[in-house]
Amino acid sequence: MVSAKTEIVPDTFLVGIGVSPGIAIGQAHLLSRARMAAIERSIDPSDVDAEVAAFEEAVEQSRRQLEEVKRKIAVQHPEEHLYIIDTHLMMLNDQMLHDETVHGIRDRLLNAEGALKRALDRFRSVFANIEDEYLRDRAGDVESIGERLLRNLMGESRQELSQLDHKAIVVAHDLSPAETMQIDRDKVLGFVTDVGGRTSHTAIVARSLGIPAVVGLENVTAMVPGGTPMIIDGGAGTVILNPTESTFREYLQKKQRYEYFEKELLSYRTLPAETPDGHRLILRGNVELPIEVDQVREQGAEGIGLYRSEFLFFGRLTPPDEEEQYQAYRQLIESVAPHEVTIRTLDVGGDKFVPDINLADEANPALGLRGVRFSLADRSLFKTQLRAILRASVHGPVRVMFPMVSGVAEVRGCRAMLEEAKDELKSEGLLFDDRLAAGIMVETPAAAFIADQLAEEVDFFSVGTNDLVQYCLAVDRGNEHVAYLYEPLHPAILRALRMVCEAGRRAGISVAMCGEMASESLYLPILLGLGFTELSMNAPCIPRVKRIVRQVRRSEAEELLAAALEMKTATEVAAFLEQEMASRFPGIYGTTNI
Amino acid sequence: MVSAKTEIVPDTFLVGIGVSPGIAIGQAHLLSRARMAAIERSIDPSDVDAEVAAFEEAVEQSRRQLEEVKRKIAVQHPEEHLYIIDTHLMMLNDQMLHDETVHGIRDRLLNAEGALKRALDRFRSVFANIEDEYLRDRAGDVESIGERLLRNLMGESRQELSQLDHKAIVVAHDLSPAETMQIDRDKVLGFVTDVGGRTSHTAIVARSLGIPAVVGLENVTAMVPGGTPMIIDGGAGTVILNPTESTFREYLQKKQRYEYFEKELLSYRTLPAETPDGHRLILRGNVELPIEVDQVREQGAEGIGLYRSEFLFFGRLTPPDEEEQYQAYRQLIESVAPHEVTIRTLDVGGDKFVPDINLADEANPALGLRGVRFSLADRSLFKTQLRAILRASVHGPVRVMFPMVSGVAEVRGCRAMLEEAKDELKSEGLLFDDRLAAGIMVETPAAAFIADQLAEEVDFFSVGTNDLVQYCLAVDRGNEHVAYLYEPLHPAILRALRMVCEAGRRAGISVAMCGEMASESLYLPILLGLGFTELSMNAPCIPRVKRIVRQVRRSEAEELLAAALEMKTATEVAAFLEQEMASRFPGIYGTTNI
Repeated sequence: MVSAKTEIVPDTFLVGIGVSPGIAIGQAHLLSRARMAAIERSIDPSDVDAEVAAFEEAVEQSRRQLEEVKRKIAVQHPEEHLYIIDTHLMMLNDQMLHDETVHGIRDRLLNAEGALKRALDRFRSVFANIEDEYLRDRAGDVESIGERLLRNLMGESRQELSQLDHKAIVVAHDLSPAETMQIDRDKVLGFVTDVGGRTSHTAIVARSLGIPAVVGLENVTAMVPGGTPMIIDGGAGTVILNPTESTFREYLQKKQRYEYFEKELLSYRTLPAETPDGHRLILRGNVELPIEVDQVREQGAEGIGLYRSEFLFFGRLTPPDEEEQYQAYRQLIESVAPHEVTIRTLDVGGDKFVPDINLADEANPALGLRGVRFSLADRSLFKTQLRAILRASVHGPVRVMFPMVSGVAEVRGCRAMLEEAKDELKSEGLLFDDRLAAGIMVETPAAAFIADQLAEEVDFFSVGTNDLVQYCLAVDRGNEHVAYLYEPLHPAILRALRMVCEAGRRAGISVAMCGEMASESLYLPILLGLGFTELSMNAPCIPRVKRIVRQVRRSEAEELLAAALEMKTATEVAAFLEQEMASRFPGIYGTTNI
Repeated sequence: MVSAKTEIVPDTFLVGIGVSPGIAIGQAHLLSRARMAAIERSIDPSDVDAEVAAFEEAVEQSRRQLEEVKRKIAVQHPEEHLYIIDTHLMMLNDQMLHDETVHGIRDRLLNAEGALKRALDRFRSVFANIEDEYLRDRAGDVESIGERLLRNLMGESRQELSQLDHKAIVVAHDLSPAETMQIDRDKVLGFVTDVGGRTSHTAIVARSLGIPAVVGLENVTAMVPGGTPMIIDGGAGTVILNPTESTFREYLQKKQRYEYFEKELLSYRTLPAETPDGHRLILRGNVELPIEVDQVREQGAEGIGLYRSEFLFFGRLTPPDEEEQYQAYRQLIESVAPHEVTIRTLDVGGDKFVPDINLADEANPALGLRGVRFSLADRSLFKTQLRAILRASVHGPVRVMFPMVSGVAEVRGCRAMLEEAKDELKSEGLLFDDRLAAGIMVETPAAAFIADQLAEEVDFFSVGTNDLVQYCLAVDRGNEHVAYLYEPLHPAILRALRMVCEAGRRAGISVAMCGEMASESLYLPILLGLGFTELSMNAPCIPRVKRIVRQVRRSEAEELLAAALEMKTATEVAAFLEQEMASRFPGIYGTTNI
């Protein structure tokens, strides 16, 4: 490892989180973006008003800057990108952040910086306790807006990415989504950051712009002087500083292979996802943000297998009303038709909308009030969402899906609520599709154990492997101490999946998978063998998955599965699959595994 | 509900946590023990030394008081009770608490009260994040010692329980374990508290003294004026304020029935736990504290099915060395012989002993670094424990049990470590039982799914239902928002248990249960039907469980199980069992279900 900035050993290899695939080769351009250090101190009561005014001014200044960025971006980019700036503007208006800061100044006699820092800390801890990985990654937005506020408060100016005047790899502590959008594709070859997660806005935008990116490198800004030659492999999540001649040549080839491979993959977009022996799969997209809907079409997905409705609810003080939800679902459905959209009902805890339920205090949020548990507790919020989905169902094919189900009683509760919503709409003379299919996420071990009973109550299953693996193995994959135990190929998981698929088959309902496992090339033969009929994933993965599906016979996949089910450890299963796939289908996995 | 102290509606019914069974009828004696309110303020640098000195003096004074209590108790009670006072003395010496407070005074310029309060808050949050229910309940000890320190610091004196001069039911915010031990059985009819949990020291001591107690009533001290007539039912966890004449008579009868029933139960202590059709069960005790070992013998348990070794590790800065552990295990084994002791290896995270692993930061500690995950990460700590258990194995029958296993690889890792320990002992010429049985807790859903594979790797299973239910249903039962979903009779749980029992039977290994489910009367027919060969529980439950076992035929239990397995909800199963048991075995459940 390298510690000082001055001497970088040739071929220094760093591993981070690859969030946008592709190879970039170039020189480092450092954005000096060390975290602002706010200093907390006590103030005299007579200074309170001045400190509050300074804070309000910083908020106002930040607002102006963001509006300016928004204006600039609106010229260069399609309109839908702007929601990210809007999210930031919304956070700037957040009553909690504002009130907490003013409270810190007035009642605790803290200087504005100190009070803001405390308010941000509290905000941060609320986010850190959120179970949903997607929402947890929103913490990056808090950092971004907090830093802007602090900078304005402390009167410092910031280096803007738009000033970059040559081709380079951008090295930064973090990039705000707004900055990501200021990226000039002709100048920025790729970027690497100290912090960030796989589902942060930044990562999503990077993928949609096709810029290779590696995040979560922890201290890369501290290690890399400007101008350092470097390579980033956004698929593998690796960064090489000061590459030797031979490394450089190796990656240049890799880059060419990758670009060739990507081009070749394009040809799969319009072909059906069918095995050589005629087993037809439906490949769909997982969608979090509106920006991803375009990709679903472009990448040849047959609809949306998981629409996370949380986005509509996030970053606001009151939940969206029925009309707003209806319009959003309608727009979504119309833009994806004639393909189908599966809308998952709200899958977060309720501390954002119901102030008297303080979920931030849950000792184990993953085992707490989430998904349908929350929806069944806040029935009016739930009903509003169901009514909106029902009303939107007249505009194209759509299904509704309930998350975090652990028993038959919950399913019946959800269906009863759906019937109630239908009755209401009927009596109000509003239109809806009376045959709207209702299914569940299979993501608790309990749901797997009683899959046969649940199958009789629902129209379809969709396996959420991220949570299913987490609960089955009792491993929080976000916890670095135990992440090594998070193994989707664990024999227990294979058996649970088999149980679910068999139950679905017997009941004659479709069984989908929408967890990350669905897009892992190595796992595909297993999923084919199990008989999944639908896989939903991030849209950019679809051509690659389709390419594999079109080469592996279902019968072969069943053989591989049968052998894997005899094994005792995930390591053994993985080694077996790697070896078998390499020998049976040489080259099938290509150069990248996004 | 009642809000003001002055007017209590007749028959006001409160529900808390019953921690020690029995009925008490009497008048409230209020211990004025509202939480001390420490006021934080900034101090002048010149006052730092005086504040530090005041804190040190409060520590010294607290130490003297505790030593005095210890002296007094030593006269009245058997020596083994004193460890609780020792635990408090140890906490008083805790370097973290001391250093944090002094740091707060010196570096943050806080007054001693404020600095102590912050240090206690931090201590509290460390405890609150601990997964293990038993250790989490230790937070009560932190409160107790913290309050004593604050009181001494603020120069206030406290009402002592020993001053009680008439028969009464004690109503308190909380009782420290030391206070519980000052209870005069002739004066204190029972007690109720605002806070506390099922496994707090206070609860354990109350049970061992046979005093009815209900804790966790939240605001009982605020509601009840001294002298209020009241009834407590420590088995049901209920409290009735201002009982009417008819309620009074009802509970008087209940009290007589309970006392008769308890007396009758005594006769079961020496009889075998055998069904009328000859299925023989082994009933064992779960032990956390040394005080419980006596009960194991007295209540007719055939050994200890779960010895939680955490107690040895708790409340100290460095883990016990091999010799200390060896002596503790040896004493335990000798006091239980000829019956067998099952020692569970350390089942907590390691933040107590390994300062650089900060587990308090885990977002979901239940899914984090626990049990064998921690042991396999801190190999030297693990090896020391295994060596101590092996050495103790020459003094009587003992087994070792590994907690939180999620896969075959972990079991192999543990067994390899056991072999290493044996090899070391051999080469050092130290004696041990080479055939020491090694088993696992089955408490992750993964372990249930692959029970057949695990059964080939171990000598026995012991199902930990508390965690198994928690993970299967993805419900933290400590979380009030979702506790209603914690259902041991959930169809998924019945299936998981069946899987485990079948795997054990096929492999010819014994299958025990040591979770709380094992002592619930209603669940017994299910457990008998599943074919469990051993149940381990809190010792006072054993006579009652034995009484039921001796009346229910295995064949009948199998019928009930078969019917229950057809059902779809826990509610349905519970209603069915209640009805069947009531009609088949009228009166079998007696008046109490501890």
